[in-house]
Amino acid sequence: MSRNIAIEMLNQVPVQDQQIELVERKCLGHPDSIADGIAEAVSRALCNTYIDQFGGVLHHNTDQGEIVAGESMPQFGGGKIIKPIFILLDGRATKEFKGEKIAADTVALQAAKEYLHSIVPELNLDKHLIMDCRLGTGSTDLRDVFNPEEGKIPRANDTSFGVSYAPFSDIEKCIKEISSYIDTTLRPKYPVYGQDIKIMGLRQGNSIKLTICCAMVDRYVSSLSEYINYREKLAEEALKVAKTCTDKHVEVFVNTADCDVECSLFLTVTGTSAEMGDDGSVGRGNRANGLITPHRPMSMEATSGKNPINHIGKIYNLLSNELAHTCVEKVDGIAEIQIRLLSQIGVPIDQPLIASAQIIPKPSFTMKDIEKDVFEIIDSGLENITSVTERVIRGELKTF
Amino acid sequence: MSRNIAIEMLNQVPVQDQQIELVERKCLGHPDSIADGIAEAVSRALCNTYIDQFGGVLHHNTDQGEIVAGESMPQFGGGKIIKPIFILLDGRATKEFKGEKIAADTVALQAAKEYLHSIVPELNLDKHLIMDCRLGTGSTDLRDVFNPEEGKIPRANDTSFGVSYAPFSDIEKCIKEISSYIDTTLRPKYPVYGQDIKIMGLRQGNSIKLTICCAMVDRYVSSLSEYINYREKLAEEALKVAKTCTDKHVEVFVNTADCDVECSLFLTVTGTSAEMGDDGSVGRGNRANGLITPHRPMSMEATSGKNPINHIGKIYNLLSNELAHTCVEKVDGIAEIQIRLLSQIGVPIDQPLIASAQIIPKPSFTMKDIEKDVFEIIDSGLENITSVTERVIRGELKTF
Amino acid sequence: MSRNIAIEMLNQVPVQDQQIELVERKCLGHPDSIADGIAEAVSRALCNTYIDQFGGVLHHNTDQGEIVAGESMPQFGGGKIIKPIFILLDGRATKEFKGEKIAADTVALQAAKEYLHSIVPELNLDKHLIMDCRLGTGSTDLRDVFNPEEGKIPRANDTSFGVSYAPFSDIEKCIKEISSYIDTTLRPKYPVYGQDIKIMGLRQGNSIKLTICCAMVDRYVSSLSEYINYREKLAEEALKVAKTCTDKHVEVFVNTADCDVECSLFLTVTGTSAEMGDDGSVGRGNRANGLITPHRPMSMEATSGKNPINHIGKIYNLLSNELAHTCVEKVDGIAEIQIRLLSQIGVPIDQPLIASAQIIPKPSFTMKDIEKDVFEIIDSGLENITSVTERVIRGELKTF
Amino acid sequence: MSRNIAIEMLNQVPVQDQQIELVERKCLGHPDSIADGIAEAVSRALCNTYIDQFGGVLHHNTDQGEIVAGESMPQFGGGKIIKPIFILLDGRATKEFKGEKIAADTVALQAAKEYLHSIVPELNLDKHLIMDCRLGTGSTDLRDVFNPEEGKIPRANDTSFGVSYAPFSDIEKCIKEISSYIDTTLRPKYPVYGQDIKIMGLRQGNSIKLTICCAMVDRYVSSLSEYINYREKLAEEALKVAKTCTDKHVEVFVNTADCDVECSLFLTVTGTSAEMGDDGSVGRGNRANGLITPHRPMSMEATSGKNPINHIGKIYNLLSNELAHTCVEKVDGIAEIQIRLLSQIGVPIDQPLIASAQIIPKPSFTMKDIEKDVFEIIDSGLENITSVTERVIRGELKTF
Repeated sequence: MSRNIAIEMLNQVPVQDQQIELVERKCLGHPDSIADGIAEAVSRALCNTYIDQFGGVLHHNTDQGEIVAGESMPQFGGGKIIKPIFILLDGRATKEFKGEKIAADTVALQAAKEYLHSIVPELNLDKHLIMDCRLGTGSTDLRDVFNPEEGKIPRANDTSFGVSYAPFSDIEKCIKEISSYIDTTLRPKYPVYGQDIKIMGLRQGNSIKLTICCAMVDRYVSSLSEYINYREKLAEEALKVAKTCTDKHVEVFVNTADCDVECSLFLTVTGTSAEMGDDGSVGRGNRANGLITPHRPMSMEATSGKNPINHIGKIYNLLSNELAHTCVEKVDGIAEIQIRLLSQIGVPIDQPLIASAQIIPKPSFTMKDIEKDVFEIIDSGLENITSVTERVIRGELKTF
Repeated sequence: MSRNIAIEMLNQVPVQDQQIELVERKCLGHPDSIADGIAEAVSRALCNTYIDQFGGVLHHNTDQGEIVAGESMPQFGGGKIIKPIFILLDGRATKEFKGEKIAADTVALQAAKEYLHSIVPELNLDKHLIMDCRLGTGSTDLRDVFNPEEGKIPRANDTSFGVSYAPFSDIEKCIKEISSYIDTTLRPKYPVYGQDIKIMGLRQGNSIKLTICCAMVDRYVSSLSEYINYREKLAEEALKVAKTCTDKHVEVFVNTADCDVECSLFLTVTGTSAEMGDDGSVGRGNRANGLITPHRPMSMEATSGKNPINHIGKIYNLLSNELAHTCVEKVDGIAEIQIRLLSQIGVPIDQPLIASAQIIPKPSFTMKDIEKDVFEIIDSGLENITSVTERVIRGELKTF
Repeated sequence: MSRNIAIEMLNQVPVQDQQIELVERKCLGHPDSIADGIAEAVSRALCNTYIDQFGGVLHHNTDQGEIVAGESMPQFGGGKIIKPIFILLDGRATKEFKGEKIAADTVALQAAKEYLHSIVPELNLDKHLIMDCRLGTGSTDLRDVFNPEEGKIPRANDTSFGVSYAPFSDIEKCIKEISSYIDTTLRPKYPVYGQDIKIMGLRQGNSIKLTICCAMVDRYVSSLSEYINYREKLAEEALKVAKTCTDKHVEVFVNTADCDVECSLFLTVTGTSAEMGDDGSVGRGNRANGLITPHRPMSMEATSGKNPINHIGKIYNLLSNELAHTCVEKVDGIAEIQIRLLSQIGVPIDQPLIASAQIIPKPSFTMKDIEKDVFEIIDSGLENITSVTERVIRGELKTF
Repeated sequence: MSRNIAIEMLNQVPVQDQQIELVERKCLGHPDSIADGIAEAVSRALCNTYIDQFGGVLHHNTDQGEIVAGESMPQFGGGKIIKPIFILLDGRATKEFKGEKIAADTVALQAAKEYLHSIVPELNLDKHLIMDCRLGTGSTDLRDVFNPEEGKIPRANDTSFGVSYAPFSDIEKCIKEISSYIDTTLRPKYPVYGQDIKIMGLRQGNSIKLTICCAMVDRYVSSLSEYINYREKLAEEALKVAKTCTDKHVEVFVNTADCDVECSLFLTVTGTSAEMGDDGSVGRGNRANGLITPHRPMSMEATSGKNPINHIGKIYNLLSNELAHTCVEKVDGIAEIQIRLLSQIGVPIDQPLIASAQIIPKPSFTMKDIEKDVFEIIDSGLENITSVTERVIRGELKTF
């Protein structure tokens, strides 16, 4: 059965060339990102538990959860946590199947704690955390089970959609690269840089301003002057990374709300503001491409924690993102592409109601040059849609 | 001090004229909307408590909270709730000021329950609900207090932005009008129509499909045939309303996942799916204009529950929405306008870093015809920005 | 089958005649008594739900639960609750039977709140209370169901025992009568006397000192002098009641920790110290006869909330109390009697391993005068043991 | 100032010589004992935190808390936990003193988990446990601080009492010795014997029946026959220990409710029934001497978790127990002694309202032989009462 794929030209100025552009990323230790990461870790752990126990993934959705901030007293050289962080796990999971019970709650608790520990290692989970689990029960029909080896295409759980675009603009690239550079290169050397980082970028014409709010871990910084040095170092390093992503003029500001007296510094005991004052929720941070982009089409769906079998809000957002980037990489002449996949409840997920690509061609190209290849990329992506599921379960696809 | 207001032409096809358009609204009883409504009700109650006790609004943010679904057994003629809904209230509030304690938790519980009762009157709050409150403490400096009578402009709490657009497209109008019609006209006559309604609209060219998922309240419907009648009645009424909003071809589908056997009907005891299986969170539903519009610029900010004094994520989203609609009403020649207000942390909120309006003029108009009036509307809106705060506190501005 | 009933003489001085005697009662609004009352109310509500739904009582034990105090700011004329009281309901209940679900959690919540409201009417359950329910599941075999109409004798759930004594000593009578007088006569006229009252009695020889700690409800008392008047009035009234119970010398002290400055008065908003600082638990207050009597044999079992079908810790404590008092009423010559009923797990509850009565005869009586009648009272009480169950379910037997 | 110490003869048959005697001990892994142990561990940790931070112990009472059982699926060779155990910590603690914050909640969580791990090492605290902490705040006046080095005598917090007796009867000795033998000798060799053990003893005349309910840890037992072997081994070993404590006829029964089919065995994953079905509470298990003795005078007070500075319910129960045993050891001629210490609120704790000793002399002794020595032991014990506090803080005195 042929797929309903519509490709049309988009008659507008690429975001990259508009006058103003605003982009934001909440890095892994931001409370909203922690919530997303936990939701996704719990879903993956459940998938693996179901596969181990029954050979297939059973119904669940853990795209919920709340992080309620604690209270801390950071100080140079090392402070302390006064009141623990509270985390509520919720959502639905199958807890009984074919007469056999499933330890869904214990699986969820363990996965959530392991993930949290990997992101906020300074947090002592025994004394700085209260984690509650109120995972409801969902029921799984036999026909709901997704068996990765059977290769049957699941049916869409809902009428919903996914949306994405490519390529990344300069400012988007800057933000993604800086985030990645801090995680992989800078923090291993300087553990003072906590995981709770928010990077905001504003482009006005050819001028880019990047504002980085980075939680400093107090036991790795002994004084205000050292704090200031670390702050300046981060600004310099970020600027270097940014310059590899753009020719535009870039300025970097780090922890600008600081007034150089201790009380207002972004000093933390654990490297996340969830220790003091900032709550977090699933689905309120980055979209599936790792960014918040108010000048771009976005889906409000929480991608993290949704089951990766038949939950359109997850699968179509991830797939549209992949498809858009593949089109830009593989097909010449695309200045900007937006892809929207719209599902029909109850219909196999490889058969969207409509898969729509809107393309702004590069100056010397026409839609004709582009159309056919884009069609094939989208068609083939839908053909192999269960690979999204599999890679999510293996943890190879990021949702935030 | 003059404001930084930038007005530019947007060279693109208005959404209304694009080939595909997708819009969604989660009505008041949808679990995500309930979460938003509670968050906003709690914030308003805190505002009023602070004003009563201290003459000004103290710091708080209650844009958090989680609704964990219960379990129910609906049946024609009236079923029952098996397991209560769990609701967590969180966020921050000032609990002590000038040495005086503030009953923030009890205020929050009461406001949340009153709101919930107003939206889901079939839910017995004594036996069908567990409501926990883990509101953290925030500290309020004296200078943070916003005194509505003083008229001083508060300073932005963050570098953030608000974004909106006008006018509503046909499909957007259809959805808003149907939602409103059910609430004000249909339900008072037919209490069978619960508050948990999701309306999804898809336009392909000139053809609009509206899908309404409406929770039916079981004790007002005695049989499957009656259920089917009510479903058909809703489809007819909605179609009538839609026809007043558009000349395009409209089809309406109600509860299409139903397979006409009781088990799969959208039958509920209380009129919300939160009674069984659907969790809800603040900030994951409608944007500040009451819609989810993936073809439009959107802010990811949770508007509901944020303090209305200096929280840019709330104030600028509400204000940009008002400004856009005012421009379209008052100024001739605007086919579509998008307004973005970007704050600078620590700067008075009437002085955004930039207020940007992007306009698609109607065919025979030029920017020159439009520019000056738009500038004045935006400038005046910023001048009177604290009116947003005041109207939020009085409950006159909706956030979702 | 004959019952193993052992009757022996107890060669000791009756408590009444010993030099020192200490007795205590926690009245209905004491946090521990509230916990007991809620546990019992929940059990009764479950019993009735099971009977309605299945014609018999299913397995449950709700002799658990915790009351975590809130925070209040009482003041003459009426203060306020700052932080709500938190109540956890736990224990076990059958939630599914013969494939049918049972709304155990909602039944528990409702029963607990109704009871709480009846005891602490000044507490606004909507805003001054957070009630959580973590009732676990127990499983009921078909053979476990107790059908009151079948009249079959259930089997003991455990090897346990019940113990009691009669008659009440003078000081015990004083305390019970004062407690009852306040509840039935004084409070209806003077609502200032809250439900949280602790009465402690110490007898040294012929001199009795009664100390009454009585929570005063702030909105019914406008000043310190009024407070003092009410305190004195309570002392006078209690003294009058005491004098009807004893010829010994009695002194009554009310709220003696008061130092006549407002801060240290026992002034409350709601009439219970659970509003501020005093937590409560099931099973830590009065024994099944309504008293705490360290000079008497006592069972540590929590009687309240245990199922009244086969839970020996409940049934034998209630029955031994009845039997002891019946013996004293019906049989001449008993100065003091202690009754212990010891069960055998798995054996019908009318067949205790041993029913032991220890008797101190009055001076001119011998065991021979007494033995036979006591035997018959005990034997007949065991014969009709299911009447205990029935009266518990109807709320006719008090457990604390 | 001389102390009010009253010594009188008790004219009754020593318990040891009465016809029937019933005694019970809940060992360390019984849910009620776990609750007690956690309460005490939290109190001790708070004491040490206060001493470290302020040089003295601040006000707290953590004699509260609730253990809500989980769900498990034990099986020979090793089963699994399906639903985590839930533990609520509550009570009161000082969280701020002299303007300094105290991390009371994190201290409590850590102490509770460390203790739990020491008693139930098979329980994985990361995935098998949800621990919540709702510790309220108490306020500490400066004068409330107990500084162990100052040696000032604190004032009684309440009008309350402690009560105990000595010596242990044969059956009491049997139970205490068996409990200790399992913990120190048997379990280290045979980890199959879990910590949740209940030992019940019934003496009828010269015949003692001991019933031991011992949770077996499933991964150390591979089959029913092995289970039966372990059960028999425990019975034999217990019998050997019992014979060193008494000359009476002793029988030992182990896990008698077992019907030798797997489902009804006392098989557990972790060695405590809290994993499945049995909730636990503070203050409902053993009295301060480690036993439940319905034929003896008992205090209903929860000793565990109360502050050891001025809480009479704790200090006087511990002290009276020590005094009674010291009297029996040091003074010839005491068949049985009962000691009661009654406090006066607000008066230094070394000055009880009355310290009463009731003594049954051995046949050939008179009170005159005994009186003076008993007086001195009691007087000296009260003189050195703060040593109770110190040893509680150091963990040298057991409360259950």
